[in-house]
Amino acid sequence: MKAKTKNISIVLYKPKYAGNIGSIARAAKNMGISNILVVGTADFDREAMQQRSTHLASDVLDSIQYFESIEEALGNFNYIVGTTARLGKARGPFIAPRAVAKDIADISQKNKVALLFGPEDTGLANEELRLCHAVVTIPTSREFTSLNLSHAVMILCYEIFTATSAATTIATATPKLALSYELEGMYGQIKTLLADIEFLNPENPEYWMMHLRRFFSRAGLLSREAGIIRGICRKLSRYAQHKNT
Amino acid sequence: MKAKTKNISIVLYKPKYAGNIGSIARAAKNMGISNILVVGTADFDREAMQQRSTHLASDVLDSIQYFESIEEALGNFNYIVGTTARLGKARGPFIAPRAVAKDIADISQKNKVALLFGPEDTGLANEELRLCHAVVTIPTSREFTSLNLSHAVMILCYEIFTATSAATTIATATPKLALSYELEGMYGQIKTLLADIEFLNPENPEYWMMHLRRFFSRAGLLSREAGIIRGICRKLSRYAQHKNT
Repeated sequence: MKAKTKNISIVLYKPKYAGNIGSIARAAKNMGISNILVVGTADFDREAMQQRSTHLASDVLDSIQYFESIEEALGNFNYIVGTTARLGKARGPFIAPRAVAKDIADISQKNKVALLFGPEDTGLANEELRLCHAVVTIPTSREFTSLNLSHAVMILCYEIFTATSAATTIATATPKLALSYELEGMYGQIKTLLADIEFLNPENPEYWMMHLRRFFSRAGLLSREAGIIRGICRKLSRYAQHKNT
Repeated sequence: MKAKTKNISIVLYKPKYAGNIGSIARAAKNMGISNILVVGTADFDREAMQQRSTHLASDVLDSIQYFESIEEALGNFNYIVGTTARLGKARGPFIAPRAVAKDIADISQKNKVALLFGPEDTGLANEELRLCHAVVTIPTSREFTSLNLSHAVMILCYEIFTATSAATTIATATPKLALSYELEGMYGQIKTLLADIEFLNPENPEYWMMHLRRFFSRAGLLSREAGIIRGICRKLSRYAQHKNT
């Protein structure tokens, strides 16, 4: 993963709280990004930062670069992505991170990309946004739009990471479903069992069976699961058939 | 937005740090979710929580419900989504939040949905994961998989929020799922029955139960279906208990 995001940096413009920087270091490293640049003061409490980064991301803290001006910090980047909050007054059109994550990931393969975030209280002003090639707004509830800075960083990094790693597609290693033979054999056993215990209405034995089939179908029963159920039915049938003995 | 996510709650199982709970309250409210349940102690420093929630999300803190047991906290939910970290040892297949966000959003239109998170240090154990209908893993860099708890909450909430607010979302008719109380009652009956017929290994009775839980969860059992199965178990149990008569 690292290689895919190595050209991406987080640039924090005048952040106020050491704790946030620590949280950002952790979040960035979670998503394979380890370059952080800070514009403004370098006077942050190391302990407060490290408490939030955890010691596992303290290497990211160690390599933070500090700059006095934003122009200097951004000078060596090829592509700058700004971030703004959804404000009461319309500043749209809003571009969501997901809409550009793939582009950013692609661009970063050959270019240095900066993800630029403003101060906790005011965000980026138009003056800083001017420097950006793209500006994204993280979608939020209209009722409470103010994101914690590290949460905003996390969401943007997560979207880019997801775009680079196609992580959403790994989920579907489809397991082996039961064959129709196995399923019908299982339903036959269940039906016999339920008839034996007089659960089924002899007039309409299919009524309950229909319900059972419906959810077994929904589950997409695996071959081995059908085997387990058949094993249980076999055992239960022995009890059911001895009901009058 | 609020209406779309009103049935979704965040359930924190034994969280350790007040600050994280505050950050979670803020993140949840950013994404239109305002119900938080905490299992374990209720003894958290209010000031530490509020410092991170900001006063704008202090209403979410005020309405936190505290529970002593996880069964009690989850009892009235219809659908429970667990979360696990990507660990060194394979516990996969991993399902990414994005792969299920739309489903969760749809299910929540007619059902109470819990997003369950474990303690900061250990995460959820198998015992708690047993209670879940789906388990998701947030994709991270392999080099540093340990997410801050509030960041994990944020990502899952963000994915669901994004899924609910997509213009394409049409409230598909999702039926009413069984409550956790009903499901656990059903599993209890099945377990007793299988123990009675000596199907379960007394040394490790959870082994087969785990398999059964897995496909029942996949199916998303409806309330009436759980009722049918419980009826069948009740009848079968009578036979099983007379095995030696």
